[in-house]
Amino acid sequence: MHGVFPVGNSPHDHPGRGHPMSTQKEAPPEETLDPEDWESMRALGHRILDDAMDYLETLRDRPVWQHAPPEIKSHFEGPAPSDPEPPGKVYQEYLDTILPYQVGNSHPRFWGWVAGSGTVMGMLAETLAASTDAVSGAFSYQSNNYVEMQVLDWCKELLGYPRDAGGLLTSGCSASNLIGMAVARNTRAGFDVRGRGLRNAPHQMTIYCSDEAHSSIQKAVELLGFGSDALRRVPVSESMQMDLKSLKAIIGKDREDGLLPLCIVGGAGTTNTGAIDDLNSLADICAKERCWFHVDGAFGAWAAIAPGYRHLVAGMERADSLAFDLHKWMYLQYPIGCLLVRNPDQHRQAFSLTPAYLAHGEGDRGLTGIDVPWLADYGFELSRGFHALKAWMTLKEQGAAKYGRLIRQNIRQAQYLAALVEAAPELELALPVSLNIVNFRYIRPGTPNSRLDHLNKQIECELQEQGVAVPSIVTLRGRKYLHVAVTNHRSRRDDFDLLVQEVIRIGGELA
Amino acid sequence: MHGVFPVGNSPHDHPGRGHPMSTQKEAPPEETLDPEDWESMRALGHRILDDAMDYLETLRDRPVWQHAPPEIKSHFEGPAPSDPEPPGKVYQEYLDTILPYQVGNSHPRFWGWVAGSGTVMGMLAETLAASTDAVSGAFSYQSNNYVEMQVLDWCKELLGYPRDAGGLLTSGCSASNLIGMAVARNTRAGFDVRGRGLRNAPHQMTIYCSDEAHSSIQKAVELLGFGSDALRRVPVSESMQMDLKSLKAIIGKDREDGLLPLCIVGGAGTTNTGAIDDLNSLADICAKERCWFHVDGAFGAWAAIAPGYRHLVAGMERADSLAFDLHKWMYLQYPIGCLLVRNPDQHRQAFSLTPAYLAHGEGDRGLTGIDVPWLADYGFELSRGFHALKAWMTLKEQGAAKYGRLIRQNIRQAQYLAALVEAAPELELALPVSLNIVNFRYIRPGTPNSRLDHLNKQIECELQEQGVAVPSIVTLRGRKYLHVAVTNHRSRRDDFDLLVQEVIRIGGELA
Repeated sequence: MHGVFPVGNSPHDHPGRGHPMSTQKEAPPEETLDPEDWESMRALGHRILDDAMDYLETLRDRPVWQHAPPEIKSHFEGPAPSDPEPPGKVYQEYLDTILPYQVGNSHPRFWGWVAGSGTVMGMLAETLAASTDAVSGAFSYQSNNYVEMQVLDWCKELLGYPRDAGGLLTSGCSASNLIGMAVARNTRAGFDVRGRGLRNAPHQMTIYCSDEAHSSIQKAVELLGFGSDALRRVPVSESMQMDLKSLKAIIGKDREDGLLPLCIVGGAGTTNTGAIDDLNSLADICAKERCWFHVDGAFGAWAAIAPGYRHLVAGMERADSLAFDLHKWMYLQYPIGCLLVRNPDQHRQAFSLTPAYLAHGEGDRGLTGIDVPWLADYGFELSRGFHALKAWMTLKEQGAAKYGRLIRQNIRQAQYLAALVEAAPELELALPVSLNIVNFRYIRPGTPNSRLDHLNKQIECELQEQGVAVPSIVTLRGRKYLHVAVTNHRSRRDDFDLLVQEVIRIGGELA
Repeated sequence: MHGVFPVGNSPHDHPGRGHPMSTQKEAPPEETLDPEDWESMRALGHRILDDAMDYLETLRDRPVWQHAPPEIKSHFEGPAPSDPEPPGKVYQEYLDTILPYQVGNSHPRFWGWVAGSGTVMGMLAETLAASTDAVSGAFSYQSNNYVEMQVLDWCKELLGYPRDAGGLLTSGCSASNLIGMAVARNTRAGFDVRGRGLRNAPHQMTIYCSDEAHSSIQKAVELLGFGSDALRRVPVSESMQMDLKSLKAIIGKDREDGLLPLCIVGGAGTTNTGAIDDLNSLADICAKERCWFHVDGAFGAWAAIAPGYRHLVAGMERADSLAFDLHKWMYLQYPIGCLLVRNPDQHRQAFSLTPAYLAHGEGDRGLTGIDVPWLADYGFELSRGFHALKAWMTLKEQGAAKYGRLIRQNIRQAQYLAALVEAAPELELALPVSLNIVNFRYIRPGTPNSRLDHLNKQIECELQEQGVAVPSIVTLRGRKYLHVAVTNHRSRRDDFDLLVQEVIRIGGELA
């Protein structure tokens, strides 16, 4: 196992030179996309790696974001290049026109929406995966499948989900929600949905989520053919959690109407406020109502590994399917999400389809032998990138304990920011911080809310355009707030000091 | 535009040090996932880059594939690492246990199924995208969106598709087919599918594809809720193309039965044989029958850019939606696929959903201003990786003309292999080569077909396990054939000489 490239079974390397057809006169010279000059390409690679390391090491020295000017936009309007360009020239164009105008989510003061920040080891892992053009989730007796299975096992272990569950890595939580709800549909519809289709469903099915649920839930409901009318948006309580009394009432009404309550979607960390539904109660209701319990834990699921905060997501482990990202609160590079499904057979039965050219799982030989399951049988993608590698390498490098401390650090930073906001008379907190999201606004006594909405939107734009910080804007109970989601391993307390200072400064200048 | 990191609008860098709350005694020290020792991490990065370049430069010196032994599989069974490990140790584990057991698709003699081979510039682009944790398809005034829009424009231009079409990059053709057929469904169902759902459809809808269509078509039909019963698998002709007479008869019968023929899926390059349906005739039938015309051009679409072969995919440009990969015949790293949709409004209307926290497209300021459309509104993913960069950099580096020559080279290599097979009495070609796929088998006079099926499966395994080459196996008209799909920019004619030589050698030894 120690030689990287065993040569014992390598065939001889220059075959067929004397073959009559390979030397025929009319054969055109053969080309490849490999470099003509490997040494200069290697030098460019080293330059790129150095620049990338410089970039990461000096993130704080530059604005979080800058507005790309119109000439940058128009720069990207030309036709397809017909002729080749020197690789170094292509890279220079990247440096001039692409790198300066990034979203900025790797910067310590990017907190808009809910974003990831990436790791250095994640970058090196992406280089490695790209070097072999690695594939995962198909073909037997190859390590990439083992790595993905191990990353899934680690996710189950860390989140307290059953070890014998099924799952797969996805492009993100939108795909995870889609696949989880597809399993719910195909498992619980009470007839052969895969074969007969929803038009032949004996009952109209209904799905339940809170008013604060992510848009990807509605997108999944629509894509799966339920129709958004089938999605019941249950009102939330003061704490922004799904109101259980309302939920029960709506389910009761739907049953009276002859509908089939199929699935309840619990949220573990909403986008707006980080609210976590009462997952144990939802699991109880699902058990009683024979509903599928899907949890959208996009970032919030990872509260489970923060020392002292696991209780926040208690009940999550009872989900029939659990969707979450690793490119947000696990800080890994886009894209990597995950879906876990309690019953791996149900997961497989919802998706598996094996045409003759993909036959696998017989014999113990070659790329199609009996081995681990092909994860392509557990989702809608066949060719799948090796997203697992960056998770595997970064988790090994950092250790899960440090990940837990960092997630706790982000939660505490949110509490720290909330305390700064409460201490400042110019600022108003929207509601108590439940996890890692802080919503607040600049206020002035006597100013109408519509004017404050406009003012806070202007403050958001100024913060972004001055390169100070990137918060976003959310609307809560009809009012606009600055939205700070702390899923950033580079943020420090003094970054939040700066944010508060600058919001007050800009607010004062604009007001 | 020439300074990479303009500092004009950078805020001061060490704010808040004197702030009373940031210096409070009880505050725990803050951590980050960034390296403690940047210099040693940088050195590791250079080592990884060197090793990756060595790997790519010496691909031919190693076996195409090797069977991972059981101890490798069991190596990946441990629990989540709690403690950190030195980065160099993690990398050594990659070298020992992951790198040797890759699928092998970057090797010059990997031709199984239909796979990509990756480019060196693609690898460097993936490093760059990972260095900024780049996102595409959301947020305004940032270059990644412009790059993705330009790559889409280049695809339209190169494939002869209308310039004003919509589209987006995807994780692969399975996702592209799914999204394309979702647009078909939501546009042509004749009622509000997104709102009301398929159970309330006035008519049962039907979808048509050939018997040889890819499994992802059925997967999409099932996921979208049509049910696989709604998928009509039209028989193929001798040339493995959809039989048009049968298609018309089935549509006629469905209309008589009160069904709604919704969508015809034409194939531009089937997995089994590379057959391309008569796309112009299918477009005519779609026009007459008012069906949506979706083309699955996974790899075959790119025949359009090979000098002398564009006619093979004539009519493809008439598709309402066109799905294809760039990680197969455009040789780019996984994952990158594409969907183009003739009418961008229909595309957007099938998916767009904008909750308040994603409000965008007003004003000209900040990350949510009026800019290019957010591609997240054109599919089911919200957070999307920057897959466009590897396409953009590689196309610039190589030029489209060379890409066209390479695709022609692969077509000619398939013809070359077919000629070798026809010249060898021990081998039998399954059918004439229509594009870049060659199916053939080892034969012995008087041997029954069941025995030949077994023998050729054994030959496939020996070729793989001896590291000589990776073909796969397909079943055509009830018989098993070795399947060689040439979508590999590193293959040379002498690689096919070796393949033929080794099939005859192994066949002789086994028979």
